[in-house]
Parts: sequence; C-alpha cells; structure tokens
Amino acid sequence: MSVPLLNPILTKENKDFLYHLGIEKSTTDLPKRFGDVKFVCTGGSSTRLALYAKWFAKDCGLDCSENLCNGDRFVMYKTGPVLWINVRIGVASLSIVLIEVIKLLHYAKAVDVTFFRIGTCGGIGIPPGTLVISTSAVNGELKQEYVQYIMGKRVTRPAILDENLRKEIGEFAQKIDISVVSGKTMACDDFYEGQARLDGAFCDYTANEKTNFLNHLKELGIRNIEMESVCFAALLHRANIKAAIVCVTLIDRTKGDQIKINKLQYEEFESKPFNLIKLFIRQKLNI
Amino acid sequence: MSVPLLNPILTKENKDFLYHLGIEKSTTDLPKRFGDVKFVCTGGSSTRLALYAKWFAKDCGLDCSENLCNGDRFVMYKTGPVLWINVRIGVASLSIVLIEVIKLLHYAKAVDVTFFRIGTCGGIGIPPGTLVISTSAVNGELKQEYVQYIMGKRVTRPAILDENLRKEIGEFAQKIDISVVSGKTMACDDFYEGQARLDGAFCDYTANEKTNFLNHLKELGIRNIEMESVCFAALLHRANIKAAIVCVTLIDRTKGDQIKINKLQYEEFESKPFNLIKLFIRQKLNI
Repeated sequence: MSVPLLNPILTKENKDFLYHLGIEKSTTDLPKRFGDVKFVCTGGSSTRLALYAKWFAKDCGLDCSENLCNGDRFVMYKTGPVLWINVRIGVASLSIVLIEVIKLLHYAKAVDVTFFRIGTCGGIGIPPGTLVISTSAVNGELKQEYVQYIMGKRVTRPAILDENLRKEIGEFAQKIDISVVSGKTMACDDFYEGQARLDGAFCDYTANEKTNFLNHLKELGIRNIEMESVCFAALLHRANIKAAIVCVTLIDRTKGDQIKINKLQYEEFESKPFNLIKLFIRQKLNI
Repeated sequence: MSVPLLNPILTKENKDFLYHLGIEKSTTDLPKRFGDVKFVCTGGSSTRLALYAKWFAKDCGLDCSENLCNGDRFVMYKTGPVLWINVRIGVASLSIVLIEVIKLLHYAKAVDVTFFRIGTCGGIGIPPGTLVISTSAVNGELKQEYVQYIMGKRVTRPAILDENLRKEIGEFAQKIDISVVSGKTMACDDFYEGQARLDGAFCDYTANEKTNFLNHLKELGIRNIEMESVCFAALLHRANIKAAIVCVTLIDRTKGDQIKINKLQYEEFESKPFNLIKLFIRQKLNI
C-alpha cells in the first residue's frame, strides 16, 4: 500500500518545498533516501527523539543518519527503515509535521508504512508509569473527531486508530511481559483548563467539578489525557496509513495536577513507550 | 498594575512547579530574579529568541542571562527588565508558556508588564517583508475569539489587543521611518487547509475557492495569517496585561502558497519585528 497524495492540485506540480522540514522535492532524490521507510516514530521533544534514534541504531547495529531536517523547527533521523521525528506540543505543530512527512513518503514511493506516536500523558485512575495503548481518541468535547476550520467553515474528521495494530502491540507486550492497558485517550488543546487542572493562571471551576469531570471521563473508558492524539489518529486515518499511540502516564490525575516524579523516574517512565515500540519494530523487521 | 493570578485555588498553595519552564516557586527567589521584568518578548523558535536576547543585551550594554528554563521544551533569557521566551508553533504550546510565565511574574511581584509577540506570517495582498501590527485577531471561523473546551464544554474568550499600545508602536515606527501596516490577523490551527493552501497532503477545494476566500479575508480587513494571535490576545486580555503583535510577512498569499524567499532574505525579514520592538523597548526604558 503506497502513501497517497490526496491533493489533485499538488500532483500536477514538479516542485514542492516541504517548508518546515526544509526539504525540496525536486532537488532531493527522495525515493533513494526515503523509499525504504516502513515505520515512522513521532514524539514531542527533539533531544528525546534524537536519543531514541541513536539507541535504536545501536541496538540493531544500524547507522543513524544526521538530522535530515534543515532549519531549527524539527529534527528527523533515519535508522534503516525507521524514521524518528519530533512534533513538539499540540495539534498545530503535529499536523504540520504529519502533512509534510506524508508528502515526503508519497514522493519517496514508500509502501506499507506504519506511524507510531510515543509520548507522555496524564493517567486517569492508573498509577504513574503505566503504559496506555489508545483504542481511540476523543477531543475536548469528548467526540471522536478532529475539528478543522477550512474556508471559515467547521469540518470534522473521524479520529480512528488501527484496531488490529493496537491488538497486535497489546499481544506482543503481553508476550514479552510488558504491562500495558488499553483505553480511550482524550486530546486537549491546552494543558491547564482544557485538562481540568486546578493549578493554571486561570481557574473558574471548583475542585469538586474537576473530580466529577475526571470521574465522568473514567466512566467513558478514557484512561489518559494528552494533546495530540485526535489529530494524529484522524490525519493518518484520512491518508489510509496505519497508526498507533502508546503513551506513558506521568501522574494519576485523580490524585493531583502537579507532576512530582523525580528526574530519574521521569527518564525511566519516558523511555517505556520507546522500549515497547522499539521491540515491536525489531520483531516486525526481524532485526 | 501587578500581574494577577485569577485562580483562587492556586493562591492558597505554597508550592507550584512551573512544569514546562522547569522552575519551582518555593525553591527559587522569584521576586529577586524576575521582579523587575517590564517586557516579555515571545516568538516561535528557540534559536531565534536566544539570538534576539544576545543582540538586545549587546546593543544596550546589558548582561544576557543563561537559559533560565530547565528541560528541553522552551528557552527563556533575561536581559535587564526584558524576558525573551520561545513558544514554538500553535496555540497549545503558546498557551502553556503564557500561563506559566503569567504565574511566574505574579509570584515575582512584577508590575506594569507588557507582552509582545514577534513572528512571521503570510500576508494578504501585501508584499513579502511587510511589517504588520495586529489591530485584532480572528480565529478560523473569522470570529474575534479564542475557543477553549473546559469540562467538555465550549467556552469563548474575546481576543482583544491593546489599542493604545498598537497606536503607540505605529507612531513610533513612523517617527523612525520603519514602514508598517495595521490590520486584523487571522489565526489558524493548521498551516495547510486551515490557511486555504493548495500544497498540503490533502486538498478538497479548488484554486478558485481559495482565491475567493482570500479576497473575502481582504474585504474583512485581514492583512495576515499566522497560528497564535487569537490565543495570545485573549489570554493576556483576560489577565489584564497589555499585549501587541508584530509579524513580518514571508509571502503574499494572494500570489502563492510556497515560501520562496532565500535564506538571506528570510533572515532580513525575520529580524524586522525584532528590530522594531527592540527600538520601541529601548525608547520606553531610555536605554
């Protein structure tokens, strides 16, 4: 299955400057450089993704590329058929990267590509350090859709993740004794009020209202909250690309708002989604 | 005028870890370190903001601090009474930084603080390199409001900028022969479809529809499009903090979608909002 370009206007153009990646289609041999890509791993931080790429390359005896992005906005590393790209925080930044990487992989004639989002999140009723595989993603209105405004009009796209891929990752984790939970993920556009935190610069609601809201999320089967999943699911579903989201909880939001784990714990927790997806990819690639 | 903390729950707490800045209130002497802050300059890129801080310090004969953020998410530099902070791309990331900086300045007992956003944008019917001072900010639905989802419900906040400050900057620019235009700014959550570009991975509309939409924006007095202004205006207005937005256009969107200026031009254009705001601040501070 090739990566489609669902833009009839752009298919007629010879040139395309992927502005935020800093890569020009017409002057780069994209099929040669990216034609073999099978997995794309995305996460927030540039330094973390650079580390993951280096660790993966070392573990698999592969070379790790230089940063393949030009400019200072994002980083992209290639280790054999795996790309590692950072997307920063939130939907705006994520959508830019996904759209430019989809175009890149289309031009590169890459086939059968799977995307992963590996990240951190707040858990709901589960202890810090828990790995959550998302079954689906809901937005701030608790709807399973990504809302866009196009030409001044509200457009919604279904935020659907690949159920087979999720099951496969879940079964693989069980087989290698990595504990994971599956559940819905809520994506918010804001870290404080959007996630019902009591520690922002503004707060018009009470602690009781917050508790009731988090309990409501729990009843709906929502296990974690982060800031990208709805866009990630919807955009890749629209492009007919398989995608999965694995995040680790840094806090149980039913017990507080401030993230209080120490640096060592943070580093341990943060590497959990990477470790699971790394092992999953190695098994799929037989390396 | 002090920086308010509009959160009655948080005012009772002794501790507050500003998570994304990596600063703990209770273990840092915030009044000593930040009590004298009068201006906060925000922009997207970490490397650019670091440069601006260094240039400003050099021009004014001030010291430039080390990066005052812990962690790799954002950078913050201090040059005398001026803070330089990067916010990355989009509303999610911006709202996190603004909220944590508002809390920081409240704890620091800073008074009479003004915020600036200096950045890049797409222009509508004006040539690349034009400086635009925003009169107001509208969202993807062309409404002058910032939309939040809190406890599952849609909440809107007016996106209002300080009219006196805008006029003052405009008159100052004229006095020192820097050409600027004033106009409304549209903020989109997405770089491609949200801004009616024809060069994304998806495009369901025609080139004609795009042209009609951009003409419609022009008729409404919208002069430029970027991805942060609505949140910036609304959040600071809510906190009763004076704020202004000065962006430089990198492209005239009525003539195309791809940014085609070369690196030298880019650097020249990119520094224009910084130069204007730098001179404005120096005049205000008499340095």
